[in-house]
Amino acid sequence: MNIQRIKSLKKAMAEANLDALVCRLPENVLFLSGYWPMLGAAFIVLPLEGKTVCVFPECYEKETVNDLWDAERVTYPFGFLDSGDPYEKIAIELKKISHGQGWKRIGYEGGFESVATPWNAAEPMVPAANTRKLLEAIQGPNSLVDATDLLNLQRSCKTPYEIEKLRKANEIAAFGMKTFCEKVDMGKSGVELAADIEHAVMTYGTGYKDACRVRGFAQVATGAAETAVGCRPNEISTCRRLKNQDIALLELAVVADGYWADRTCVHVAGAATSEQLRIFEIVKSAQAAVIKKIRAGVTAGQADEAARRIIREAGFGKQFPHITGHGIGFRYHEPIPIICPNSDQVLEAGMIHTVEPGIYFPQMGGIRVEDDIMVTKTGCEILGPFEQYLC
Amino acid sequence: MNIQRIKSLKKAMAEANLDALVCRLPENVLFLSGYWPMLGAAFIVLPLEGKTVCVFPECYEKETVNDLWDAERVTYPFGFLDSGDPYEKIAIELKKISHGQGWKRIGYEGGFESVATPWNAAEPMVPAANTRKLLEAIQGPNSLVDATDLLNLQRSCKTPYEIEKLRKANEIAAFGMKTFCEKVDMGKSGVELAADIEHAVMTYGTGYKDACRVRGFAQVATGAAETAVGCRPNEISTCRRLKNQDIALLELAVVADGYWADRTCVHVAGAATSEQLRIFEIVKSAQAAVIKKIRAGVTAGQADEAARRIIREAGFGKQFPHITGHGIGFRYHEPIPIICPNSDQVLEAGMIHTVEPGIYFPQMGGIRVEDDIMVTKTGCEILGPFEQYLC
Repeated sequence: MNIQRIKSLKKAMAEANLDALVCRLPENVLFLSGYWPMLGAAFIVLPLEGKTVCVFPECYEKETVNDLWDAERVTYPFGFLDSGDPYEKIAIELKKISHGQGWKRIGYEGGFESVATPWNAAEPMVPAANTRKLLEAIQGPNSLVDATDLLNLQRSCKTPYEIEKLRKANEIAAFGMKTFCEKVDMGKSGVELAADIEHAVMTYGTGYKDACRVRGFAQVATGAAETAVGCRPNEISTCRRLKNQDIALLELAVVADGYWADRTCVHVAGAATSEQLRIFEIVKSAQAAVIKKIRAGVTAGQADEAARRIIREAGFGKQFPHITGHGIGFRYHEPIPIICPNSDQVLEAGMIHTVEPGIYFPQMGGIRVEDDIMVTKTGCEILGPFEQYLC
Repeated sequence: MNIQRIKSLKKAMAEANLDALVCRLPENVLFLSGYWPMLGAAFIVLPLEGKTVCVFPECYEKETVNDLWDAERVTYPFGFLDSGDPYEKIAIELKKISHGQGWKRIGYEGGFESVATPWNAAEPMVPAANTRKLLEAIQGPNSLVDATDLLNLQRSCKTPYEIEKLRKANEIAAFGMKTFCEKVDMGKSGVELAADIEHAVMTYGTGYKDACRVRGFAQVATGAAETAVGCRPNEISTCRRLKNQDIALLELAVVADGYWADRTCVHVAGAATSEQLRIFEIVKSAQAAVIKKIRAGVTAGQADEAARRIIREAGFGKQFPHITGHGIGFRYHEPIPIICPNSDQVLEAGMIHTVEPGIYFPQMGGIRVEDDIMVTKTGCEILGPFEQYLC
């Protein structure tokens, strides 16, 4: 159970005059109920008063029973010849749940455009026209209220229950980083490294502290040209083979039972150049300065400046073109907090975010380090610590 | 180029009185333009008259240039400190594109609730409230028409260009199946097998016939209890270790540059029992009967019955509780065709769908085989053929 979460949610719902929250995105189902759906076919109804109800495909009863906090369970047929139209069945159940409740305002996840993949990462299910129609049918179209901002804000400060899950996801991510550092070598390709890392995350991660569903998403850029654009939001691992003094830059997302880690590791094949070593030390110092600065009450802008000042004063201000960090937890990237210049956002205890300064330029390539940290009253904790070294 | 696709789309748009299609889901961007986006931040405008326009993050210019068919390219800043709000920039570009065109009806992908993951499989971007607002701003809310049915129908019959891509995805999937059959052994776990298979798909698949972005999503159930529920839409690989005579059931999705394969393979650790061998032969015969039956003009119901009759007559009718097949191409599961009982849907040349009969019961477990086939005028072609054997 995660009683603090439910209490906090109900307080926020009362303040926003919401009678209920109804969500189907796996990340929000997990957040509201403890259950991480397989596909995206489960719905959670969290009423302001009364018990949470989970409406889910009956074929996943076993998994649901294991994970779901104190909630009523309602199943519907799904995925078989005689299942019929799932939306019809879900509509009937949602109407039953809301019948006689007099709900006037129902919050839903209308604004989620970046979404976390469900366990079936090949084919997420997301709310679109049919879900909207389904939710409108509960109490009429005027009852629907977009609760995206409320959900994102609630998601920003983690409870001890959630922190434990995120610590575990980061410990598993460290297995992937360790494999990366062990395997980087001349002759290895980015694709081979990415595959090795994902293999390690899945095999070492599944079963680790009882984690059941674990997957890594690794991207490894190699050499100056590829790593110099390693500041883009996404990379492509290629078959290019590492040569002596080539940088390999790992961007790694890990999901463990619905909780996410986002880490970056950099390593050099063979012997690093003195320039690479110098840049690496600047980037590490920048990260260390943020970590030293952070505690509850510091603004995101102050935290960003701690890193940016070191990089700027070393003469690489323009070569650090991205934010210093972002929230993480129920998705790879969460919008609160964003550690960026001039932000007045105040960091609060329990916030978990990345710290990921980097320096990128064509001749050398790109060097970034990234860890996930939790803000505390007096400082911060690095989750799943991993000692970074260049080669 | 894929001229047949553009011609076919424009004909369908004219019949539906659509002046333009505007899409952002990576699967539809790929379908309409040849470009498979990294995240889901690219938009395609396909006007009934005039040239296609792709609006995409400028940091992905290189990848876009490589893949995009004949289309105008418009970039917007994305992902960096000075990028600003991407939606504002996209809105400006979409308005420019539509300015003075007099468009009255703009088709969009309002009904896609199952979506294909983009290359960044950890965090898809999907159209929700902000995209809807953006599209409404082009010509006013009344101009938007849900073109989901049109898109799904258009996606059902593949052009030679698309068939070549899907053949390649299936050839890559066969690498994963081969690895599975080689690695199934007593002592191996489902998690280890899934990780090995995904590793093989990524390392053997990337670069194969110039494939750039390749990923497998493997699930391996082991033993009677796990494989008996292998008929569910999704599985969980576990750390349970294979024993002598245990079935291992692989469900494998592969994406190669945005084109999908969906295959299933079954294998026994050690020596198979006579019952397992008997069931395997029934399932293989059922699949062979469908493959023999299929040609353009046959109905989906007739194709389904070819498999179902064999399984029913062997006494396992109730142990085959799912459809015989579904469309595939731009997503793991496409809605046209669905090979199921009593369907009047007529199979057409160029349709690509799975053929996946299975038999599941608690004592033995589950046995399924699955291949992707393309309907032709005179029969069908199995894509990326793989000889299935039980042990």
